[in-house]
Amino acid sequence: MLSFESDYIQGAHEKILQRLTETNRESLSGYGSDRYCESAKAKIRQACDCEEAEVFFMTGGTQTNEIVIRTMLAPYEGVIAAKTGHVSTHEAGAIEYTGHKVLELPQHNGKLDAEEVREYLETYWADGNHEHMVFPGMVYISHPTEYGTLYSRSELEALSGVCRSYQIPLYLDGARLGYGLMSHETDVTLPIVAECCDVFYIGGTKVGALCGEAVVFTKRNIPKHFMTMVKQSGALLAKGRLLGIQFDTLFTGNLYYEISSHAIEMAEELKKLFREKGFRFYLDSPTNQQFVILENDLMERLQEEVAFSFWEKYDEDHTVVRFATSWSTTKEDIEQLRELLSNM
Amino acid sequence: MLSFESDYIQGAHEKILQRLTETNRESLSGYGSDRYCESAKAKIRQACDCEEAEVFFMTGGTQTNEIVIRTMLAPYEGVIAAKTGHVSTHEAGAIEYTGHKVLELPQHNGKLDAEEVREYLETYWADGNHEHMVFPGMVYISHPTEYGTLYSRSELEALSGVCRSYQIPLYLDGARLGYGLMSHETDVTLPIVAECCDVFYIGGTKVGALCGEAVVFTKRNIPKHFMTMVKQSGALLAKGRLLGIQFDTLFTGNLYYEISSHAIEMAEELKKLFREKGFRFYLDSPTNQQFVILENDLMERLQEEVAFSFWEKYDEDHTVVRFATSWSTTKEDIEQLRELLSNM
Amino acid sequence: MLSFESDYIQGAHEKILQRLTETNRESLSGYGSDRYCESAKAKIRQACDCEEAEVFFMTGGTQTNEIVIRTMLAPYEGVIAAKTGHVSTHEAGAIEYTGHKVLELPQHNGKLDAEEVREYLETYWADGNHEHMVFPGMVYISHPTEYGTLYSRSELEALSGVCRSYQIPLYLDGARLGYGLMSHETDVTLPIVAECCDVFYIGGTKVGALCGEAVVFTKRNIPKHFMTMVKQSGALLAKGRLLGIQFDTLFTGNLYYEISSHAIEMAEELKKLFREKGFRFYLDSPTNQQFVILENDLMERLQEEVAFSFWEKYDEDHTVVRFATSWSTTKEDIEQLRELLSNM
Amino acid sequence: MLSFESDYIQGAHEKILQRLTETNRESLSGYGSDRYCESAKAKIRQACDCEEAEVFFMTGGTQTNEIVIRTMLAPYEGVIAAKTGHVSTHEAGAIEYTGHKVLELPQHNGKLDAEEVREYLETYWADGNHEHMVFPGMVYISHPTEYGTLYSRSELEALSGVCRSYQIPLYLDGARLGYGLMSHETDVTLPIVAECCDVFYIGGTKVGALCGEAVVFTKRNIPKHFMTMVKQSGALLAKGRLLGIQFDTLFTGNLYYEISSHAIEMAEELKKLFREKGFRFYLDSPTNQQFVILENDLMERLQEEVAFSFWEKYDEDHTVVRFATSWSTTKEDIEQLRELLSNM
Repeated sequence: MLSFESDYIQGAHEKILQRLTETNRESLSGYGSDRYCESAKAKIRQACDCEEAEVFFMTGGTQTNEIVIRTMLAPYEGVIAAKTGHVSTHEAGAIEYTGHKVLELPQHNGKLDAEEVREYLETYWADGNHEHMVFPGMVYISHPTEYGTLYSRSELEALSGVCRSYQIPLYLDGARLGYGLMSHETDVTLPIVAECCDVFYIGGTKVGALCGEAVVFTKRNIPKHFMTMVKQSGALLAKGRLLGIQFDTLFTGNLYYEISSHAIEMAEELKKLFREKGFRFYLDSPTNQQFVILENDLMERLQEEVAFSFWEKYDEDHTVVRFATSWSTTKEDIEQLRELLSNM
Repeated sequence: MLSFESDYIQGAHEKILQRLTETNRESLSGYGSDRYCESAKAKIRQACDCEEAEVFFMTGGTQTNEIVIRTMLAPYEGVIAAKTGHVSTHEAGAIEYTGHKVLELPQHNGKLDAEEVREYLETYWADGNHEHMVFPGMVYISHPTEYGTLYSRSELEALSGVCRSYQIPLYLDGARLGYGLMSHETDVTLPIVAECCDVFYIGGTKVGALCGEAVVFTKRNIPKHFMTMVKQSGALLAKGRLLGIQFDTLFTGNLYYEISSHAIEMAEELKKLFREKGFRFYLDSPTNQQFVILENDLMERLQEEVAFSFWEKYDEDHTVVRFATSWSTTKEDIEQLRELLSNM
Repeated sequence: MLSFESDYIQGAHEKILQRLTETNRESLSGYGSDRYCESAKAKIRQACDCEEAEVFFMTGGTQTNEIVIRTMLAPYEGVIAAKTGHVSTHEAGAIEYTGHKVLELPQHNGKLDAEEVREYLETYWADGNHEHMVFPGMVYISHPTEYGTLYSRSELEALSGVCRSYQIPLYLDGARLGYGLMSHETDVTLPIVAECCDVFYIGGTKVGALCGEAVVFTKRNIPKHFMTMVKQSGALLAKGRLLGIQFDTLFTGNLYYEISSHAIEMAEELKKLFREKGFRFYLDSPTNQQFVILENDLMERLQEEVAFSFWEKYDEDHTVVRFATSWSTTKEDIEQLRELLSNM
Repeated sequence: MLSFESDYIQGAHEKILQRLTETNRESLSGYGSDRYCESAKAKIRQACDCEEAEVFFMTGGTQTNEIVIRTMLAPYEGVIAAKTGHVSTHEAGAIEYTGHKVLELPQHNGKLDAEEVREYLETYWADGNHEHMVFPGMVYISHPTEYGTLYSRSELEALSGVCRSYQIPLYLDGARLGYGLMSHETDVTLPIVAECCDVFYIGGTKVGALCGEAVVFTKRNIPKHFMTMVKQSGALLAKGRLLGIQFDTLFTGNLYYEISSHAIEMAEELKKLFREKGFRFYLDSPTNQQFVILENDLMERLQEEVAFSFWEKYDEDHTVVRFATSWSTTKEDIEQLRELLSNM
């Protein structure tokens, strides 16, 4: 069935499968100590224009958030996030499971506002009673956000400035970072991300890999004995090569950018199509996730022919649904959707 | 370089790569809800001869141990394990990280003794003060053990009997289960494992997969909302297909058994070779891990030509090292080793 | 210095000190197994008009919240609380430290609204994606709230009804329960609390004891091996008598009610005094905590003569402060305050 | 009934009750910020002859162990303890509950051997694989031990030396420290404890207080924001005065030493009595806990007349039991026991 359900509905970019096959019979040491991991790290450092970057590979987004956050926070600290942040809502309490509170602030199209973060920190430190409260120890943002929206360079710099003035790290969840970087409406580049953030991850699972996320610590700030804590969290792959080879492939040539860019082109087509057909959008997303408001009746008929995701109730008669494009979306998919919509 | 360093030095069995490639462009739902996961589960249920088995896929062994143990124990319970059990020593404290004590009992060639377990439980429950102590809530064994040794069917049944009489589950860590089942010196089959154990896992990472372990709950005893707790532990893959397709392939035909059997043949060759050359074994292992006692001097020369693993100091002049065969070991590897040893 | 800083500024009611002294040289077994604990539990059961109540003594409020919540929730569950709930803000992340999320809902004068709780639960269970979210597993309320306000009987019954229809327990934090029960503006009695709530605690620390809170499980629902989990949390006193004797004294005659009632009389005097002097209240509190809006200038002069608590900034020129009465407040304290205010 | 069941069977030394009564109506700030806490800390610093000591009061031993250990260890570290250490066996898994492994070493009359600790650390750091193992991050000892035995000054210095050479803290659990310091067979003083240990606690609960332990950090090494973590663990008393006044009293004059000394005199009498009557001791204890081997038959008759504690089975016909003296034991208690034994 035609599917825009998510950006992880298909396997991996063919070049990745090819490299896995080519290297399959090489005997390599385990736990990320192989040459492909080394090579991938070097390429990522270069792409970030950040010589001192320390890179570590993990298998998924929730795992990455959980481990980065718990290893960078002191026991008395929590992490600031938007109320709609992935760590706040859709990780089954993974952050709290590690013993840390998510300090939820209001969201604006999925984003944190630097001024509101500053006010929160100011008020917190002004309040004499803060020894009985959770210390704010980090700011978490997702880019693109859960609503497909993007921080501008100046917004990112503002958040970074607030974090620095309060000496807490800024962490960027880049599960879909490629799609953000290739958006037509962004002035943020990977080196800018590396400059503004103390730690972030480059998403692989949703951008062409079978699985895998590359965490980048940018300020020589990787937590001491990080690998042991990754092991302790059950997140250290024996065959680290599986992650190394994938990221080495994604960062060879411009593959990561190219496939991200393709997803953006497909998203632009999708937007155009929905607009032509007179649909309303829930918000304006410049990336690969598009949130469309459907009449419930139409939604029910449509979902018999094409897969998409329920997002939230809009009103009694309408629902917000998500259509996602990705590296694997084809022009034929868009055309097929056009026909379906025309017949509805 | 020639390598017997571990059983996870190469990628995956070619049939697995082939299936990943063939299915790559199918659009599938995420988080383990796809048809390949379903198919793999059905095949595993059949291989276990256990209709009611509930199967769940995870990416690695420590992760699996951590999640199975923490979700099956009450907060006041700990898990009994041999002092040399993987959970006791080589998982960076992953079990304690989840809040549970590993109750260490003596090991006998890596194995727990059913009578000693019974005595421990008897003494524990006889002691009036046990409300201030950790309740023994599970027995953990590995099969093969960390020393390559195996429980006999009657040993397994004895342990199972002790657990049932104290109403605590028996959990078997089968990271290398295939190699145990195909050993020349075992009377244990997969259905016997399923019958004796309340939960166990079938190792994929060390037996031909890129990554992946299949947890099997055998008594309709999967913890409530298990998937949510897997997510909470950061262990739920978005592309669950990666695990489903691999296990579906391993349990199509007799692939899992065949490649395990091959590793055992290679191990028998290896043992013969070391014996011929007059080497001593640290203990008698009937599976793919062989523990050889080397003179330190020879060890140093040898490791310039072939990779193997340091295990432990034997005495001032000797060291115990591990040579592991696997699904990927070739006759040529053995021959090359023969030549090397002949020239030492 | 004159102090209305909190309701825990003085030691204990004299009858408690007297009973501690009288019983001091009796040899008693430890860990709550003594006769005074038994007697206190029986008296509390009677006061609650709840024969099946199971009672357990702890030393403080945060400790009690932490242990009750973590032992009653499944690992995948969180606790619903008002954004201003004590567990949400002033316990240094104690609930999250045990691995559980506090699911914050809006507050209305410190209270949860039963309809909003119902909507939250409805939406949660309607949303197909809830396996990736924290399950709401309990509702926490404080009574009196952090703002001194009270639930009416019908509000309490409404919350209880919502909880029952979703089969999750209702937990009432009664750190200041006595002051709530003796308010002039309540129709809630201790038996009503016991009927509506699945578990609650009767505060001692703030109502005449040196330390101590009595947790009451009302529906034969005390978690299995609760004592062991209390020990595990470091909360089991060796000399359990210290808590038993205090609660036995508080629930002998009507002592707990009498001293609570006294605090309410003192609070009424305080309110009258502030009203007479033309001060504004931040909200209308019918219990022992009174929130007054002071000009910053006056506040600074006043705090040189009398202790009270900073609560929050009101606007640029005003601050909300708290004056608390308690079992230990005297008429002389009120008169002294009157003089101070007259001279300002 | 006559009782030697434990050293926490009676209330508190009368001077403590007297001071609690005298200070009862003073209005003091909460959470340990009062003048009695300050005064007690100053006196303890002086008694330790350690100007830079940082002192914190908690309510019980398990709580203290749990908080000290979890706040001083990194997430990847565990604590070395004797197999019979209190943290290893009788705290319901409190240390593991905080996420840390207790690394158990053999015990010798309840004590760790400095050489064995050194060997463990040497082997650990020599083993190349230690990134997959729990890092030893602290050494825990109890003094007196769970068997009433004592480290000599040189043994303590040896342990301290090992810890320093590996740069991990030495932590001494002094639940019964007074009885150790006043033993006839010790050359260890409080300043020596402060010199050798990085952190330790002075037990109050078992040495004359209603409750309370004084943690002493000796090397300006109190964990950052320790108070917040104490709050987070549910261990911060609102009425901190309860602990401050008690320790202030114990360290005024020589009260703590005098009452400890009295318990030792009583223990010497007890030993003499048992020896005279021809009983065997399980081991030679120079402190207030005496472990006597009783015929089961006699034991059963005896426990109808006097309370003592079951310790462990000795053989089929004999049992090891514990008789404890304390600050509250009287000569009459000993005489009464003499009569009982004479009539058996």
